[in-house]
Amino acid sequence: MKIVDFRSDTVTCPGDEMRKVIFEASVGDAGYDDDPSVNELESLAAELVGQEAALFVSSGIMGNIVSTLTHCRRGEAILVGDKAHIYRYEGGGFSAITGVLPYVLDDETGVPSPESVKDACPIRNVHFAQPSLLCLENTHNDRGGLAVSPVEFQKTVEMGRDMGLAVHLDGARIFNAAAAWDVDVKEYTASVDSVQFCLSKGLGAPMGALLCGSEEFISRAKFARKMVGGELRQAGFMAAAGIYALKKNVDRLVKDHENASIAEGLLSSADLIVESVPEGTRATNMIYFHLPESGPDSEELSRRCLDKGVLLNAMEPRRIRLVTHLDMDEKDLRRGVEVVLEEVNNS
Amino acid sequence: MKIVDFRSDTVTCPGDEMRKVIFEASVGDAGYDDDPSVNELESLAAELVGQEAALFVSSGIMGNIVSTLTHCRRGEAILVGDKAHIYRYEGGGFSAITGVLPYVLDDETGVPSPESVKDACPIRNVHFAQPSLLCLENTHNDRGGLAVSPVEFQKTVEMGRDMGLAVHLDGARIFNAAAAWDVDVKEYTASVDSVQFCLSKGLGAPMGALLCGSEEFISRAKFARKMVGGELRQAGFMAAAGIYALKKNVDRLVKDHENASIAEGLLSSADLIVESVPEGTRATNMIYFHLPESGPDSEELSRRCLDKGVLLNAMEPRRIRLVTHLDMDEKDLRRGVEVVLEEVNNS
Amino acid sequence: MKIVDFRSDTVTCPGDEMRKVIFEASVGDAGYDDDPSVNELESLAAELVGQEAALFVSSGIMGNIVSTLTHCRRGEAILVGDKAHIYRYEGGGFSAITGVLPYVLDDETGVPSPESVKDACPIRNVHFAQPSLLCLENTHNDRGGLAVSPVEFQKTVEMGRDMGLAVHLDGARIFNAAAAWDVDVKEYTASVDSVQFCLSKGLGAPMGALLCGSEEFISRAKFARKMVGGELRQAGFMAAAGIYALKKNVDRLVKDHENASIAEGLLSSADLIVESVPEGTRATNMIYFHLPESGPDSEELSRRCLDKGVLLNAMEPRRIRLVTHLDMDEKDLRRGVEVVLEEVNNS
Amino acid sequence: MKIVDFRSDTVTCPGDEMRKVIFEASVGDAGYDDDPSVNELESLAAELVGQEAALFVSSGIMGNIVSTLTHCRRGEAILVGDKAHIYRYEGGGFSAITGVLPYVLDDETGVPSPESVKDACPIRNVHFAQPSLLCLENTHNDRGGLAVSPVEFQKTVEMGRDMGLAVHLDGARIFNAAAAWDVDVKEYTASVDSVQFCLSKGLGAPMGALLCGSEEFISRAKFARKMVGGELRQAGFMAAAGIYALKKNVDRLVKDHENASIAEGLLSSADLIVESVPEGTRATNMIYFHLPESGPDSEELSRRCLDKGVLLNAMEPRRIRLVTHLDMDEKDLRRGVEVVLEEVNNS
Repeated sequence: MKIVDFRSDTVTCPGDEMRKVIFEASVGDAGYDDDPSVNELESLAAELVGQEAALFVSSGIMGNIVSTLTHCRRGEAILVGDKAHIYRYEGGGFSAITGVLPYVLDDETGVPSPESVKDACPIRNVHFAQPSLLCLENTHNDRGGLAVSPVEFQKTVEMGRDMGLAVHLDGARIFNAAAAWDVDVKEYTASVDSVQFCLSKGLGAPMGALLCGSEEFISRAKFARKMVGGELRQAGFMAAAGIYALKKNVDRLVKDHENASIAEGLLSSADLIVESVPEGTRATNMIYFHLPESGPDSEELSRRCLDKGVLLNAMEPRRIRLVTHLDMDEKDLRRGVEVVLEEVNNS
Repeated sequence: MKIVDFRSDTVTCPGDEMRKVIFEASVGDAGYDDDPSVNELESLAAELVGQEAALFVSSGIMGNIVSTLTHCRRGEAILVGDKAHIYRYEGGGFSAITGVLPYVLDDETGVPSPESVKDACPIRNVHFAQPSLLCLENTHNDRGGLAVSPVEFQKTVEMGRDMGLAVHLDGARIFNAAAAWDVDVKEYTASVDSVQFCLSKGLGAPMGALLCGSEEFISRAKFARKMVGGELRQAGFMAAAGIYALKKNVDRLVKDHENASIAEGLLSSADLIVESVPEGTRATNMIYFHLPESGPDSEELSRRCLDKGVLLNAMEPRRIRLVTHLDMDEKDLRRGVEVVLEEVNNS
Repeated sequence: MKIVDFRSDTVTCPGDEMRKVIFEASVGDAGYDDDPSVNELESLAAELVGQEAALFVSSGIMGNIVSTLTHCRRGEAILVGDKAHIYRYEGGGFSAITGVLPYVLDDETGVPSPESVKDACPIRNVHFAQPSLLCLENTHNDRGGLAVSPVEFQKTVEMGRDMGLAVHLDGARIFNAAAAWDVDVKEYTASVDSVQFCLSKGLGAPMGALLCGSEEFISRAKFARKMVGGELRQAGFMAAAGIYALKKNVDRLVKDHENASIAEGLLSSADLIVESVPEGTRATNMIYFHLPESGPDSEELSRRCLDKGVLLNAMEPRRIRLVTHLDMDEKDLRRGVEVVLEEVNNS
Repeated sequence: MKIVDFRSDTVTCPGDEMRKVIFEASVGDAGYDDDPSVNELESLAAELVGQEAALFVSSGIMGNIVSTLTHCRRGEAILVGDKAHIYRYEGGGFSAITGVLPYVLDDETGVPSPESVKDACPIRNVHFAQPSLLCLENTHNDRGGLAVSPVEFQKTVEMGRDMGLAVHLDGARIFNAAAAWDVDVKEYTASVDSVQFCLSKGLGAPMGALLCGSEEFISRAKFARKMVGGELRQAGFMAAAGIYALKKNVDRLVKDHENASIAEGLLSSADLIVESVPEGTRATNMIYFHLPESGPDSEELSRRCLDKGVLLNAMEPRRIRLVTHLDMDEKDLRRGVEVVLEEVNNS
């Protein structure tokens, strides 16, 4: 029986085609800039997102930490959403390593409003950590995977600029946002100062992320990457998979969104409370739903489903997140949701 | 004409009696633990707050930063109120210098609720910066100078303990809190792991603060104080003033609270909107009020009052803070408020 | 014509056998501890070095930075050799990120002497950053790749212990040291508190390193790895190559040492000054030699040799490092050195 | 019996004249830039050292840490002497707080040679922490209190500049250097980017130091000072003592040097080994001498002398430092040395 893994889109395992690409990859020592696959991937990434240059890093978190290390001086502040991944889920790295203070903004609709960005900037005065960076996340993981529209996104970016801030986009799933709004990803990425996107989420590559920005920014970012131990050697194996992912797996993201929508329908029909994304934003490849008090809680449900080959992520005692991805077709999805519903009702 | 300075209780200037104490102070090299006045002050402070030991530091901010450096490892988190001085007004030091991440809690009623403390502690997991410290502020400056009751304070302290956190009290004005609730200051300070209180606010000394805690904590705190350049030499001059302040100026704090109450009455009678402290808390020596749209704004009002010898702190465009202190008696206060009201209405 | 790359042992590119292992690797999401190849590699590594546990990290530098983040608190000191890689070649990360001060010891014979370790520990006093970690490097890259004997190594480790320090071994090439002294690698690695070794140097894997230590240490190290962005997803592709490297490429390291010895003989015969390792230490897979003033300098020589398919590392204006590795057999080596000698003499 | 305190020049206690100045000081809230004595002291200091602006800080160590926080970004390197106070005696603050790596240079003749500065600057490459600051100390405490000549000092400053570095002078005792070479202090201080000098050493004020530099530098330094808790309130009491010290106690420093010279003569005549300063440098107010193996060691000698009212600093088991200062006239000095000699020979 095939496993249906709803835990995350990070769980996908390359199939034979991507494995063949890895097998045949041209590699070299990236520490000497000698790895052709890494170089090709960096060029491709920069072009796709409309930036001058790109840097291959081990993970999205590394992309974010290298970015803050490069943008900010210790003692400055960054403006960040209350539920942003960089603030809540990255081990506190930007305070611990970069030494910057978060000014925490309401991100209930994905990106903080332009007004909140403006209000969060204090006057220049020794009392106040001075903000130098605005960090946005799109799609926004902890807000149901919602995708903010290019128009709304741009308004907040512009306010950041007006306030003299650099803008970093934590775009771990930015291709999902572009798919949800059916726009070129550049609509989000060309106007920011830096953007990080992941290869190992919806795009299905085994590992890695790209940090993109100006030539000058990327040349400084290399120092920060070195310092955190992120310089790799024959990284071309993983980069080749990344190139493949960017060429083959971007257009199919809409399929994951359709599947998520199907799951939403099935869960709603079964009278479960499914979270919907705020008005003006669009859903992508995630569904959050709540378990009735009468039945099993998240942990219990996860255990039961596991026995039937369906893997869940118990985020909170009665809140479950389902994520769709390329290792799951519509049939798998329907079977997986069916198992979930059976077990929810099996009290 | 005597100046009436409403800007802060940090503005007080020692009179002849305190100056005489300074003149006659026994001093020595505190770097060799040879300053008798510093040693006496530290003993006195520890005794007053019910802790084993105390350390003289240059300022309340230094007390807070030395405390976080001593309690926390880089990469841990601290739980802190949204409007806490340590978070908003100290240049981001605890992130920049200590490398800890703030988890920001609602502090509208002064100290975060026990529930919010509990909820803010994530499971132990590499994603989440693990909290090690709960930082409370009482009285709470940016929340109208409100004093939280010993009972409510203790509830939050206990929850912090239950969650395995150390508790630091930013008690810059803790003697005001004790005066407002008419309790021994130990009701607040004896149960926490560390407390910092200022000599140069309501107590009227020229400079300095005391960081108090266990012997073991203070012995480690000395390393942190050294590292930030806080070790002093013949600090006994300032310590002697501090001893005087602790002996003479604690009991009179109620007078400042009475004066603030008079000011509140005068401002309210004149139809100005005066902020009141939340139910269950008590007012101390601060009054925040709002200017009508029809009249001068904060900057303009400050300029006009300055010409008449009354100094104001323009916190926001139409929000003013008045602080009472020992360089202002009831007569001064009434005259000062009168000037303010005249200028508010002089549009 | 086959390239002979003397620049480093990091340049090796996997052949078909290792590529096949990569192609067939069992992988999973290592972020959920689900990657069987990563798990197997970590078990194998821990066993080989005689430690309880191991952690797969992106690079040797990451192993070192994660180790210092885990061992040390900000404001402590580490004892480190003057030419140690961690001090000189890692972008200053341990100061920048870990916030620790280096006390720099003479490492001319590879590891600092026990006496120098003892002398470098100051009394406990607020003036002095207190050391908490001794960091040793073996083989020592910048000291000609010398391998310190297990006996001498152990003496310094024991002194570190006696002074109350944890001991970290930067064992990027520790298998070369074990090969040079013909001992089990545990002779070096079982007695230290943590050891990092690289897969992508002499062992020939594409990327990654293992940080090994006690269960407790490794469980804390995972937090530090997360914070620097070192957690990977389907890392099993690279881990599988690492397993292969540990099984197939350890025993053959002696061959690299023999080749280096041949190179040394050829260069010496041609009247070039070749650095020899200090008495009591053994040479491994590196040769440093000096260019006569009469001929081309390092840059010029590198350019000329490049044209003939031989790559060199111009370390200093007249100092060249040659490194032998598994992508170079004796015939390649002889041809490479021949090209070098021709160009040296072609002035 | 009057105590003779040879431990340091930090031990001096203000007499009645300076106390009177303190008693009468005009003070205000320096947090609002309202303290006239602080403002006057800062102007005076800037003028004396030939810089645009100055900042009153609590201590010399704070001056140094605020300076490195202002000059450097985390991850950069500073060039610093092996025995420099900032490296050895300040709790590792610049690594712990500023996050910069020390490149340690030979400072046996006080300031590192221009060549060593040049050689310590690596090429711009991600491997190497890039230096941004050269830190010099003059007089050099741990090198016998030697004063480097303006000419030699300037050569090293210029090389720092040529290498693109900012230059900070730890001039805790820079007025002693100027006195020793009989030059205006500006000969040392006007050409550097920042200089810190102490009020509480030879100048005899109770506490404080001045950090001096350009307007732009000082305006940024205020943020760093705030962050470490160095902003004070009615600091004018201490500033007034500082003004007095700068006006009255600079010219008399030569007297301390003469006394030190007398002490050297007495100790040498008694066949003790007295350290002499290197050729080309001049002695100031410190004498380091060594105890014969036959007699008491440093600790024992200190205990014995203490009983007779003479205080010593036992730096090493058989190495003693004597410091002369304004609380000790020639008669005191002779008596103090006599006591020392008696006890040295009383075995």
